[in-house]
Amino acid sequence: MSSEDFDFGPADRLKGFEKPTVWQEFTPLAAQMQAVNLGQGFPDWPTPDFCKTAAVRAIEDNQNQYCRSAGLPDLASALATHYSPLFGRSLDPDTEVTVSVGVSEGLFAAIHSLVNPGDEVILIEPAFDIYAAQVKMAGGTCVYVPLRPPSPSSSTWSLDWGEVAAAFTPRTRLLLLNTPQNPTGKVFARSELQKLADLVRAHPRALVLSDEVYENLTYPGHEHVRLATLPGMWERTLTLSSAGKTFCVTGWKIGWLLGPTHLIRGVMCCNQYVQFSVATPLQAAVAEMLLQAQKPYMEFPSYYAWLRDEYMRKRTLLVDALRTAGLEPIVPEGGFFIIADTSNIQVPPRYLGESTPASPNPMSRDWAFCRYLTLEAGVAAIPPSAFYKEEHKHLAKNHARFAFCKADSSIVEAKARFLRWRGKDEAGVAGLENGNGKEEA
Amino acid sequence: MSSEDFDFGPADRLKGFEKPTVWQEFTPLAAQMQAVNLGQGFPDWPTPDFCKTAAVRAIEDNQNQYCRSAGLPDLASALATHYSPLFGRSLDPDTEVTVSVGVSEGLFAAIHSLVNPGDEVILIEPAFDIYAAQVKMAGGTCVYVPLRPPSPSSSTWSLDWGEVAAAFTPRTRLLLLNTPQNPTGKVFARSELQKLADLVRAHPRALVLSDEVYENLTYPGHEHVRLATLPGMWERTLTLSSAGKTFCVTGWKIGWLLGPTHLIRGVMCCNQYVQFSVATPLQAAVAEMLLQAQKPYMEFPSYYAWLRDEYMRKRTLLVDALRTAGLEPIVPEGGFFIIADTSNIQVPPRYLGESTPASPNPMSRDWAFCRYLTLEAGVAAIPPSAFYKEEHKHLAKNHARFAFCKADSSIVEAKARFLRWRGKDEAGVAGLENGNGKEEA
Repeated sequence: MSSEDFDFGPADRLKGFEKPTVWQEFTPLAAQMQAVNLGQGFPDWPTPDFCKTAAVRAIEDNQNQYCRSAGLPDLASALATHYSPLFGRSLDPDTEVTVSVGVSEGLFAAIHSLVNPGDEVILIEPAFDIYAAQVKMAGGTCVYVPLRPPSPSSSTWSLDWGEVAAAFTPRTRLLLLNTPQNPTGKVFARSELQKLADLVRAHPRALVLSDEVYENLTYPGHEHVRLATLPGMWERTLTLSSAGKTFCVTGWKIGWLLGPTHLIRGVMCCNQYVQFSVATPLQAAVAEMLLQAQKPYMEFPSYYAWLRDEYMRKRTLLVDALRTAGLEPIVPEGGFFIIADTSNIQVPPRYLGESTPASPNPMSRDWAFCRYLTLEAGVAAIPPSAFYKEEHKHLAKNHARFAFCKADSSIVEAKARFLRWRGKDEAGVAGLENGNGKEEA
Repeated sequence: MSSEDFDFGPADRLKGFEKPTVWQEFTPLAAQMQAVNLGQGFPDWPTPDFCKTAAVRAIEDNQNQYCRSAGLPDLASALATHYSPLFGRSLDPDTEVTVSVGVSEGLFAAIHSLVNPGDEVILIEPAFDIYAAQVKMAGGTCVYVPLRPPSPSSSTWSLDWGEVAAAFTPRTRLLLLNTPQNPTGKVFARSELQKLADLVRAHPRALVLSDEVYENLTYPGHEHVRLATLPGMWERTLTLSSAGKTFCVTGWKIGWLLGPTHLIRGVMCCNQYVQFSVATPLQAAVAEMLLQAQKPYMEFPSYYAWLRDEYMRKRTLLVDALRTAGLEPIVPEGGFFIIADTSNIQVPPRYLGESTPASPNPMSRDWAFCRYLTLEAGVAAIPPSAFYKEEHKHLAKNHARFAFCKADSSIVEAKARFLRWRGKDEAGVAGLENGNGKEEA
C-alpha cells in the first residue's frame, strides 16, 4: 500500500512550502565542494570560555528540569536588568519579558499571537526568508516594500517613502522590522525609524515586530536605535533578540521578546502551547553571561566592545577579499553580512541555463552566480533573491550575500581562492570588463 | 494612552486561552506553602552523571552552533539505530526521524502539519491539557472519548467501544493516543490498540499521533506496544518520544518523531519555520546517552532496567503513602503518575465554595480537594478535571493526580505529612466514613 492511496498530504498552511530552501541547497553543496562557507551565518570559531563555563556549571548544578514557560526567573531578571537602561524604562521581568526558542520561534509565536487570516504584514525586502513563511502559516498576507541599494542619490540602502506609505492599509497588523538588517547590513537611522513609527501610529491596528538580533554589531558612525524607544512606540512594539549572534552560540536557541504586557501576554500564551518551555541549563547560562559580558574582557572595557572590534576587523578582511575577486562590496553598517555587487563577473552560460530543486525557475543570475562561485572558486555565498518575493527577485540579480562571522583564517583562505579563481577565470572565457550582470542591467 | 485605545488583542486562535492553567495555580501555590510537590511531573533528583558528562563534553567541544533543522545527524542516526529493532523495520535517519523541542513542540508541529480548520481530532480523556489547546490553535475540533476508571467489570481504565466508534467520522483527521497514559497510568493493551487501529484504517483521512514519552516506564504484567507496529499502521502513525522522562532531563526539551517519510516531511517543514533548529549541544548529548544507556548500569543490565526498578520502588512508596491518607490509589500500569480516589475524604465547605482564576466555575470537588491538600496537608497534587472537557469534568470529581517521579525522601515526607494531617483531620470536622465525595456520587 503506498501513500498515494490516502489523503495524507500536508495541511493547507504548508501549501507552497514543498520547495527546498536556499539553505537546503547551499549548505550541503558547500560541504560537498569543501568550499569556504561564507553562506550560512553562524560563527565558526570556538564559543568564548565564559559562556561554556556558565553552561557547564548549570548542567552540573542539575538545572536540567522544566522551568516556568515564560522563562527561567533568573534569565527574565537578567534581561530586565540588562535592557531597562537601554529602553529608558524599568522593565518588569514577570510581564514585559518572555523567553523563546531563539528569535525564530519568538517571531513565530508573536505572529501567531497577533495575526488573523487576512491580516496584512509589511516586510522590508530583502527579508530573512523565515518571515514570509511564518506569516503565511498564520494565514496572513505579506506586503513587500523593497530597499534599494546605495546609489548616487543615497549613501545607504533606502526605502521609497511613497511605497512604504502605500503599503499601510486598514488591514495592516504588523510591520516586521530588522535592524541592523540581514542581509543588507543596513542600520536604520533614527530619522527613518521616526517615519516608520509615524506610519504605524497612524493605523489603529498596526504593531511592530522589531528583530534586533544584531543589536551589538554596529560599526562606527552607525548607532543602533531601538524603535520601541521612540515616542508612543513602546505600546506598539515587540522587540526580539537572542544570545546566538552575540555570544557565538547560535545552536543554543535562546531568544527573548521585550514589550508591553498587553503584547507579551499573547506570546507567553502561545509559547505555553508551542514548546511549553525552553532549555533550562542554557537559559541559566545566558543569565550569567549577561552579567559577565559587562565586565572587562580581553583588554576591552566589555565583551561587547571586544566583539565589535573583532567584527570590524573581519569586515575589513572580507571587504578586501571581495574586491580581490572583482566584486563590489556594499560595506555594511551593522550585522555580519556583506552584499556584494557581482555585475563585473560573467556567469558562464551553463550555470545560467541549469535549474535546481530550490532555485527560481527560470534560474536567476544571482543563484547561478552563487553556484558558480561555490563550485569553481570554492567559496560559498547565498543568492539574495531568496529574500525577495517572486516579482522582486530581479532586484537581486547582481548581488550575492557573504558572511564574515568566520574565523580570520577562513576569510584569508577565501581571498586566496578568489585570487586563484580570478587568475584562472581571466585567462578563460570571462573578463572583468564585460560581465553579463551589466549586460542584463 | 492605555492599551484599551487600540485593537491590540490576541489573534482569534488564542481566544479562550486567557484563563490561567492548572500549572499556573498549583506550581506557585506548592512553592508558597512549602508543600511536597507531587503535582508537576518532573524528577526532583539529580540528572545521571553519564547524561551530564555527555552534555558538558558537547559544550566544551564547541558543538554550539546551528545544526540541520531536522536534527543533528548524530542524533538522527542514534535514534534510527535505537528504534529500528523496536519497530521491526530499518528506519531511515534522514527521512523517517525528525527532532523537536520536546514532545510538546513535536505535537504542535505534527498537528499543524496535518490539521486544517474543521478537521476533527479524537482525544482520549483524561488527556494532557496541551493537546486540546494545540488542536484549537490549528483550527481543529476536539472530539472527546473518556476512559472510565477500573470497576467491578474492568480491572483497568477502559473505553466504551461504542463511544469510540461513534467518535470517528469522515472528518476525523487524527487520533491522539498516549500510552503509557498521563494521568491514568494506563498502558494500552495490544487488543485495545488493535481495535483503535481497525477504526483508524476504516477512515480514509484518519492518522494517529502516538505520544509515547513514558515508553520506558511500564511495570510487570504490562508491555509497551507501539501502535505503529500493528499491521497497516506504520503508514498512518507518527510516534513521539523524548529524552526528558527517561533521562531525567525534562528541561533539555529534546524530543523526536518517528514515522513514514510522507508524514515526517510535513513535520520537518513546519519545524523549519517554527524554531528552525533545536539546541545542538543537548542533541549531541542525547545521541551519546542513547548509546550509553544500553550498557550495564548500577548493577542492572542497562540504564533502562535500573530506571524501571527505581520507579517500581517509588510507585510502591507512593501507593503506601496515599493509603495512609485514606485515599484509594488506582495502581498505575506505567508512567509516573497515580490517580487516587479521594471520596473517603470530606472537603471542607470553605474550599468547595471558593473559586480561583484557574479553577472551574463553579468550583469542582477535585480542584477544591487539591487546594485543601496543598494548603492543609502540605502535599500538592493536580486536579484531573483539568484534563477533561467542560461537560466531562464531573468524571474527575473524586480523583487527584500524584506524581512519583520524586526522590524517595520527598515521598516519605509526603507520607509523614499525610499522617499528621489525617490525625488532625480526624479529630476535627471530617471523618473517613462520611466523605462528601460519596455523598455527591
